[in-house]
Amino acid sequence: MADKMKALVMTGKQELKIEERDIPTPKDDEVLVEAAYAGICGTDNALFNGLPGSADAVPPIVLGHENSGVIAGLGKNVKGLKVGDRVAIDPNIYCGKCEYCRTDRFELCDNLSAVGVTRDGGLEQYFTAPEKVTYKLPDSVSLAAASSLEPISCAVHTMKIMEDITPYQKALIIGDGYMAKLFAQMLRAYGIQRVDMTGRNDENLAKEKAELKLDKVINTTKEEITENYDVVIEAVGTPETQEAAVEHTNKGAQVMMFGVGAPGQTFKMNTYEIFKKQLTIKGSMINPNAFEDSIALVASGAVEIEPYQDNILSLDEVEGVLNHTTPKKGKSVVAVNPNLK
Amino acid sequence: MADKMKALVMTGKQELKIEERDIPTPKDDEVLVEAAYAGICGTDNALFNGLPGSADAVPPIVLGHENSGVIAGLGKNVKGLKVGDRVAIDPNIYCGKCEYCRTDRFELCDNLSAVGVTRDGGLEQYFTAPEKVTYKLPDSVSLAAASSLEPISCAVHTMKIMEDITPYQKALIIGDGYMAKLFAQMLRAYGIQRVDMTGRNDENLAKEKAELKLDKVINTTKEEITENYDVVIEAVGTPETQEAAVEHTNKGAQVMMFGVGAPGQTFKMNTYEIFKKQLTIKGSMINPNAFEDSIALVASGAVEIEPYQDNILSLDEVEGVLNHTTPKKGKSVVAVNPNLK
Amino acid sequence: MADKMKALVMTGKQELKIEERDIPTPKDDEVLVEAAYAGICGTDNALFNGLPGSADAVPPIVLGHENSGVIAGLGKNVKGLKVGDRVAIDPNIYCGKCEYCRTDRFELCDNLSAVGVTRDGGLEQYFTAPEKVTYKLPDSVSLAAASSLEPISCAVHTMKIMEDITPYQKALIIGDGYMAKLFAQMLRAYGIQRVDMTGRNDENLAKEKAELKLDKVINTTKEEITENYDVVIEAVGTPETQEAAVEHTNKGAQVMMFGVGAPGQTFKMNTYEIFKKQLTIKGSMINPNAFEDSIALVASGAVEIEPYQDNILSLDEVEGVLNHTTPKKGKSVVAVNPNLK
Amino acid sequence: MADKMKALVMTGKQELKIEERDIPTPKDDEVLVEAAYAGICGTDNALFNGLPGSADAVPPIVLGHENSGVIAGLGKNVKGLKVGDRVAIDPNIYCGKCEYCRTDRFELCDNLSAVGVTRDGGLEQYFTAPEKVTYKLPDSVSLAAASSLEPISCAVHTMKIMEDITPYQKALIIGDGYMAKLFAQMLRAYGIQRVDMTGRNDENLAKEKAELKLDKVINTTKEEITENYDVVIEAVGTPETQEAAVEHTNKGAQVMMFGVGAPGQTFKMNTYEIFKKQLTIKGSMINPNAFEDSIALVASGAVEIEPYQDNILSLDEVEGVLNHTTPKKGKSVVAVNPNLK
Ligand SMILES: NC(=O)c1ccc[n+]([C@@H]2O[C@H](COP(=O)([O-])OP(=O)(O)OC[C@H]3O[C@@H](n4cnc5c(N)ncnc54)[C@H](OP(=O)(O)O)[C@@H]3O)[C@@H](O)[C@H]2O)c1
Ligand SMILES: NC(=O)c1ccc[n+]([C@@H]2O[C@H](COP(=O)([O-])OP(=O)(O)OC[C@H]3O[C@@H](n4cnc5c(N)ncnc54)[C@H](OP(=O)(O)O)[C@@H]3O)[C@@H](O)[C@H]2O)c1
Ligand SMILES: NC(=O)c1ccc[n+]([C@@H]2O[C@H](COP(=O)([O-])OP(=O)(O)OC[C@H]3O[C@@H](n4cnc5c(N)ncnc54)[C@H](OP(=O)(O)O)[C@@H]3O)[C@@H](O)[C@H]2O)c1
Ligand SMILES: NC(=O)c1ccc[n+]([C@@H]2O[C@H](COP(=O)([O-])OP(=O)(O)OC[C@H]3O[C@@H](n4cnc5c(N)ncnc54)[C@H](OP(=O)(O)O)[C@@H]3O)[C@@H](O)[C@H]2O)c1
Ligand SMILES: [Zn+2]
Ligand SMILES: [Zn+2]
Ligand SMILES: [Zn+2]
Ligand SMILES: [Zn+2]
Repeated sequence: MADKMKALVMTGKQELKIEERDIPTPKDDEVLVEAAYAGICGTDNALFNGLPGSADAVPPIVLGHENSGVIAGLGKNVKGLKVGDRVAIDPNIYCGKCEYCRTDRFELCDNLSAVGVTRDGGLEQYFTAPEKVTYKLPDSVSLAAASSLEPISCAVHTMKIMEDITPYQKALIIGDGYMAKLFAQMLRAYGIQRVDMTGRNDENLAKEKAELKLDKVINTTKEEITENYDVVIEAVGTPETQEAAVEHTNKGAQVMMFGVGAPGQTFKMNTYEIFKKQLTIKGSMINPNAFEDSIALVASGAVEIEPYQDNILSLDEVEGVLNHTTPKKGKSVVAVNPNLK
Repeated sequence: MADKMKALVMTGKQELKIEERDIPTPKDDEVLVEAAYAGICGTDNALFNGLPGSADAVPPIVLGHENSGVIAGLGKNVKGLKVGDRVAIDPNIYCGKCEYCRTDRFELCDNLSAVGVTRDGGLEQYFTAPEKVTYKLPDSVSLAAASSLEPISCAVHTMKIMEDITPYQKALIIGDGYMAKLFAQMLRAYGIQRVDMTGRNDENLAKEKAELKLDKVINTTKEEITENYDVVIEAVGTPETQEAAVEHTNKGAQVMMFGVGAPGQTFKMNTYEIFKKQLTIKGSMINPNAFEDSIALVASGAVEIEPYQDNILSLDEVEGVLNHTTPKKGKSVVAVNPNLK
Repeated sequence: MADKMKALVMTGKQELKIEERDIPTPKDDEVLVEAAYAGICGTDNALFNGLPGSADAVPPIVLGHENSGVIAGLGKNVKGLKVGDRVAIDPNIYCGKCEYCRTDRFELCDNLSAVGVTRDGGLEQYFTAPEKVTYKLPDSVSLAAASSLEPISCAVHTMKIMEDITPYQKALIIGDGYMAKLFAQMLRAYGIQRVDMTGRNDENLAKEKAELKLDKVINTTKEEITENYDVVIEAVGTPETQEAAVEHTNKGAQVMMFGVGAPGQTFKMNTYEIFKKQLTIKGSMINPNAFEDSIALVASGAVEIEPYQDNILSLDEVEGVLNHTTPKKGKSVVAVNPNLK
Repeated sequence: MADKMKALVMTGKQELKIEERDIPTPKDDEVLVEAAYAGICGTDNALFNGLPGSADAVPPIVLGHENSGVIAGLGKNVKGLKVGDRVAIDPNIYCGKCEYCRTDRFELCDNLSAVGVTRDGGLEQYFTAPEKVTYKLPDSVSLAAASSLEPISCAVHTMKIMEDITPYQKALIIGDGYMAKLFAQMLRAYGIQRVDMTGRNDENLAKEKAELKLDKVINTTKEEITENYDVVIEAVGTPETQEAAVEHTNKGAQVMMFGVGAPGQTFKMNTYEIFKKQLTIKGSMINPNAFEDSIALVASGAVEIEPYQDNILSLDEVEGVLNHTTPKKGKSVVAVNPNLK
């Protein structure tokens, strides 16, 4: 193993630089990971622009919190993993001491830290992570797919905190981005038999309808949502889509506000209908204790990932994605080292 | 038994008349009840003014859906009750055929009928009710208290559909009306150790703090709510109080929208905070399958009722309460026949 | 419509006779159903032998509680169905008055009655049923499949009363009868990614492994169960299989005792392991409020039925099945009128 | 602060010695606690006799896992506590890496370690503990009561993993030891209105009935249990009491197997009744994430502790309790330093 490596360092607000760095040394309870794939999501955009993500990123820092790779070194206390193991990393590290951690609500931890947010992440050739957030992969999960176990786990968390869903219900997903596509598969995997989706582009929607076996797709730039639903997943994050999510509900429905809105904005809810329909409206925040489920869903094929990783890029191409100079192309995944299998 | 009786009939919008009527005959599956007490609530106000309650009331009709009394006659199929039994009546009759009934969500029944709303209720000396909504009372529940088993059951329903509450949580009740007082007792009975309440009148709040062993009362006409809560019960029903309910939440909180808002109004929610705090906001609608719990809570003394039945009146005084010519005096309960024990 | 029909009447213990009878007239809240298919299950065996089923059958009575057909007449209060509608019937009629019904635990009703058990069922050309237990079928559900909505609903009930299942768990089904085959499909439909099954016949097991996409099948007449499971469904009902179900558990597992044991028998549980593994062991009894889910599962193809209806027979052949003179051939379904579509 | 202290060291199986030891130094994430009170429970008996507790104790070791005290020193990473803070310690330390920890089932951790079991506990003047298991106490919780937050948390865990309990239910507690007395208070605090208890000594039972406001006490050495219950807590741990727990159930009941049985023993369950009554039987294992609830329950007075700490002793008297040479006297609590307040 060489002792130098290439790293994409965020050196300041909207500043990224490829640097040569020393390969880091894992602490006693940590592992060294040779990076394979790293997904890019909205949180990276926020951090690149100096906004908070799940936590604050203080430059200089290496982003990349949707990571997969191969174990390249072990801290001295690590017993459960060995060099060569194929792994994915859950970026979120919960403090264990705050009242939220102590009452089993880790997603609300007062002192969240995260690989690729508060400590160097996967947009470099080698990075370290605590053993306890590192998951060995079964053979049936590819390293590319594994880089999405983090976003899948966010959707799994939503499924876990929802009220029970049940086969007779009809679901609507608002938005047709990457998370929406994961939710379409997930809702069915958990028992919902009918799933519709909204978007803004006919061509994309037609493709999604076919691939995801949706029952109906609605292009909200030109069509109305004409039915009501028992389960609505809002996966965009604007006041209009949030209001639409609440409006198109059956009595007894639950609306999951998964999309992350801009801090200053508000959406409106009818004062009488929340009572009369007995609605449940609920936020969903990150993904504790969800990787085991995510791995099982990908391993069995219940959730397919690679067809929706539309934009495989190299470390040098990340900046174009984050500063929007490259045209938007769906889910971006950095192939840090595609030779790892 | 005489064959004539006194009835307070709603003959049209905002029209009430005392009439002499024949004592009704119960159908095969019904009982005849000699009325003891009948509570008056906001729904009666709505119906008196021609607005919908849980269902529509079509005049001529006898109101009164919070009823207690003594069995005075039995339909031929009735096996579980006998003449002389002290009873309370759950007004709500679910159709059993709609998709909501068939999926165990009776409170959302598409064809709800109700004693005192769609059929004659307890504001008359004798009325009928299906056996299946008639509950025999234990000796320790007085007939006056029993007339409030319906509103108690609405609060029990809220407790049942809430996410689990747990002793470490802090609760806030917004409003200090009759339902608020029931909730203060109920939250403690179900395990919450700290309960605060808001209102608008210092004298009332001081009394409530002492009687209900509240930890803190806040007069929102002159004080801020300075803390955040894990459980908030909104028991007023205005946009401002609904917004306050959502605002004063801890991370992970649940807000129960129990107050019934006016149909046209909306309240606002922060687009980002519902995600970041992972809030749950939920309506609560009437009270299926809740009478057994309500009876147990009153029978044991865990929920005390009579101290909060502030305004005991006669049939002749109901109109003054419904048209607001009588000054507002807290919970109104009509003593149709206070000699029944 | 003729006014006479053919009925298979149980005239006494172990006595069945084909009789000509008047076509019955539905009561006000009932429908008349022209029978299409009627499934036969272990309960029919019990009733034929004078043993109790979910309730007692008093001869003369027409059995058949897994029914589908076409509406042929309507009582005068029936609004939700019309002549010609394709329907399935939930046999169980809950009293609505007992403490179990009043606390939303219908499956435990003290006064259960049932079509095909306490009143004439579907083993005749026409039978009546209350509207509230009659479900209109979507086109995608065949009448043959619809006759199994009752057993499917028993499995749906089990899924509903289980603790949450989740994709990372491994499930074992003990037994490979009809219910076992339904459970294999159901567990996957609700999110479990790995399902194993035990049986006693290599050929059957090989076929089931392929058709039901099982991960592993175990012939317990010659192999050990070598793994432990998070979810175990016991679908046989003997002390040995119940003990095996409890034994082959992971820590934190739940064991659903679905098989119905013989009244006098007992099974043994280790006093220390139930604590140390924190096991949950639970019975499951019939199927309230489950038909909507069952219909959705069959309509979408998530649960396939017809491939497992092994033994389609005529009314005349029922006796052979019930007195075991016909060789056992898997699930028996009587095609009372296969011309109905 | 002196640098030497007195410690009660278990030097081998059934061997305890008072030794003078160096006061230990807390690691970076640990605190040093000056011990106030340490409760003794069945687990200490097991460990003293060389049997496994929640984990194995390897001599030389200082027992004591029900600990309270005052912070006397801080590791360098500790931010949330300061010298002088009154604290209680949750003994259990979960590995965070095993599949159980990663799926939020800490009580089943494959690598459990514990203060007073796998590392020195509170039966010495000073001991160390990780910050993350150390809880600051509110003023209203005495240090004596705080030493029982661990057993209370075991009961809280049982309440958390039970199916929802509800006011109409009747509960039976089998056994009248220390845990039984905690459960009596806890069941009421969580909403149950009627609680009965069994025991073997009339005098104790009479006292318990009065103090704990039980509805009925049953001396099973001479009386039958004549009623059935919706909730049964088995708090003894023998096959006979476990069988009685299952037998005296209503339909739909849940039985919590809290008592810890001897490893080789079995209890019997009726094969048919578990189905017909749809019973739930469940073990309960230790107490993750329960201290916040326990503290709230003690702080509010909902659970009273000190009246049931029957046997306050000194370090020198522990051996007599563990080798049974001292007569049994109810809950034993060692006042290591009763001057701490
Ligand atoms: N709660 C959590 O823990 C969590 C975790 C991950 C992500 N998120 C949030 O989830 C949301 C979706 O994330 P993502 O990764 O899927 O992002 P994405 O791939 O960018 O998807 C967003 C999609 O929404 C579509 N869209 C925009 N406005 C719309 C409208 N009015 N109606 C319908 N569709 C509309 C966009 O389609 P066009 O192609 O038309 O622009 C785009 O496809 C984001 O808000 C993200 O922050 C939350
Ligand atoms: N969801 C259900 O199933 C259900 C069932 C029953 C009732 N409800 C609803 O629950 C609500 C309460 O019913 P209730 O019977 O308790 O009525 P109530 O006795 O009239 O109580 C309402 C209370 O709210 C107080 N209030 C008004 N504005 C306030 C504010 N800004 N801040 C604090 N308190 C304020 C009033 O106090 P003042 O004395 O200052 O005016 C009054 O005491 C109503 O909206 C009712 O429709 C719902
Ligand atoms: N809880 C409820 O609400 C409910 C509802 C319906 C049914 N049930 C019960 O569920 C059970 C299954 O019903 P079913 O309709 O599926 O009956 P079934 O088709 O007769 O299936 C029973 C299966 O168990 C197999 N079996 C017998 N002993 C076995 C053993 N030692 N190991 C493995 N497999 C064994 C039999 O296989 P062979 O071919 O080797 O004999 C048979 O295939 C019955 O006890 C029934 O009463 C319960
Ligand atoms: N699951 C967990 O996480 C956990 C945690 C703590 C404790 N436990 C277990 O819970 C059980 C109770 O613990 P504890 O601390 O309360 O012990 P304890 O104080 O010794 O109480 C046991 C009580 O059971 C009584 N008893 C014995 N046989 C009885 C019978 N046949 N009928 C009625 N009562 C009988 C004893 O009464 P006498 O006075 O007549 O002997 C004694 O009072 C033990 O098995 C313990 O191991 C479990
Ligand atoms: Zn934390
Ligand atoms: Zn209905
Ligand atoms: Zn019933
Ligand atoms: Zn662990």
